[in-house]
Amino acid sequence: MLLYEMAIAPNPRRVRMFLAEKSLLDKVTRVELDLAKGEHRTPEFAQKNPFYRVPVLELDNGSCIAETNAICRYMEDTFTQAPNLMGNDAQEKALVEQWLRWIDFEFMVPLGACFQHCSGYFKAHMNTFPDFGKDCASKVWAFFDFLDNHLEQHEFICADRFTIADINAYVTVQFAKVVDIRIQPRHAHLKAWHDRINSRASAKA
Amino acid sequence: MLLYEMAIAPNPRRVRMFLAEKSLLDKVTRVELDLAKGEHRTPEFAQKNPFYRVPVLELDNGSCIAETNAICRYMEDTFTQAPNLMGNDAQEKALVEQWLRWIDFEFMVPLGACFQHCSGYFKAHMNTFPDFGKDCASKVWAFFDFLDNHLEQHEFICADRFTIADINAYVTVQFAKVVDIRIQPRHAHLKAWHDRINSRASAKA
Ligand SMILES: N[C@@H](CCC(=O)N[C@@H](CS)C(=O)NCC(=O)O)C(=O)O
Ligand SMILES: N[C@@H](CCC(=O)N[C@@H](CS)C(=O)NCC(=O)O)C(=O)O
Repeated sequence: MLLYEMAIAPNPRRVRMFLAEKSLLDKVTRVELDLAKGEHRTPEFAQKNPFYRVPVLELDNGSCIAETNAICRYMEDTFTQAPNLMGNDAQEKALVEQWLRWIDFEFMVPLGACFQHCSGYFKAHMNTFPDFGKDCASKVWAFFDFLDNHLEQHEFICADRFTIADINAYVTVQFAKVVDIRIQPRHAHLKAWHDRINSRASAKA
Repeated sequence: MLLYEMAIAPNPRRVRMFLAEKSLLDKVTRVELDLAKGEHRTPEFAQKNPFYRVPVLELDNGSCIAETNAICRYMEDTFTQAPNLMGNDAQEKALVEQWLRWIDFEFMVPLGACFQHCSGYFKAHMNTFPDFGKDCASKVWAFFDFLDNHLEQHEFICADRFTIADINAYVTVQFAKVVDIRIQPRHAHLKAWHDRINSRASAKA
């Protein structure tokens, strides 16, 4: 299988960390695309993902799966050996999915908007609204506080064990550095959780 | 089980349509909250969903599941009788999830932003950036065009049969009326698909 990605981008990193946790990195051949150079904005890549984003997983039969969590779900359902990262039964699966969506909609979407509208990197490619971006930063800070509060009582994001929700939250916390949002001294529980996740081998994948 | 919702809001509608297709509406007792009156902004509801959104499913054991697709996945995995709406095997499940995420991130998120930043209804509750909202409208139009093009070759959104992706796209197309974005004469394939989905009994749920 081929995994189209850009190694430093957060969504491909989520997939790699997932594969590393499941010892599946050797199942994919990585294809690096330089997004800054627009290497993904080709008619050929549009066949794989009409929205021109990485990661995309190309199966051996030529079909493509776009979207981070869809790729992870495919790998989880195809290679069912432990560890399970997306839930063992109906209630756990729903809980993990709830958290993935909170992390996406309440954390990654405002963070992405903050990066796109405030950093200046995207000016040439899209209309940017810096005041809107700044407003999104306050949502990102609110999610840091929310996580810190949640992690006071929990060793992991959900299900009392390491799951894909820890991967997605951890990668998003790290990505927030691009807009200079970082764990603060007041975030002791978030910091302890971050350091636990950061010490896993998969964090270097 | 209790389903917290506001009947006219799009995300609860997605869940009801899903339950109707699976003949599961009688498994839930619906609890209507008036979002305009802030009936969901209570400490009690924050225990169920810290982000104060509907739908939320409360199980008989008291646990809550927030997030539309997490609720649907719980019902699909718990009541496994036909029809399957979220994919039968690993590849189909990933395909459905890819489409759900495209519909959420490339269609529902910009539409929600357009509604929040342009309609005026939200001014009292959040900072609004109308120019950003207008820019999002162009993404919503682009998704209408994308769907029309895709549906020229496909009877359903994916998997060659009715799935939750049809539900989510259909409800989002209908919700776009709130910002006066509607199917145009040039969208013949989108219109035909819309009318097919609209004629299903579940569209009235
Ligand atoms: N919803 C997508 C988002 C993917 C995404 O935004 N990828 C970024 C890199 S992290 C990208 O490809 N950006 C290039 C572009 O938008 O032109 C997913 O979950 O995979
Ligand atoms: N990501 C959530 C979104 C839910 C959502 O935005 N619900 C709206 C109604 S459609 C809501 O509760 N709005 C009230 C508020 O935000 O105060 C999901 O998929 O369920």
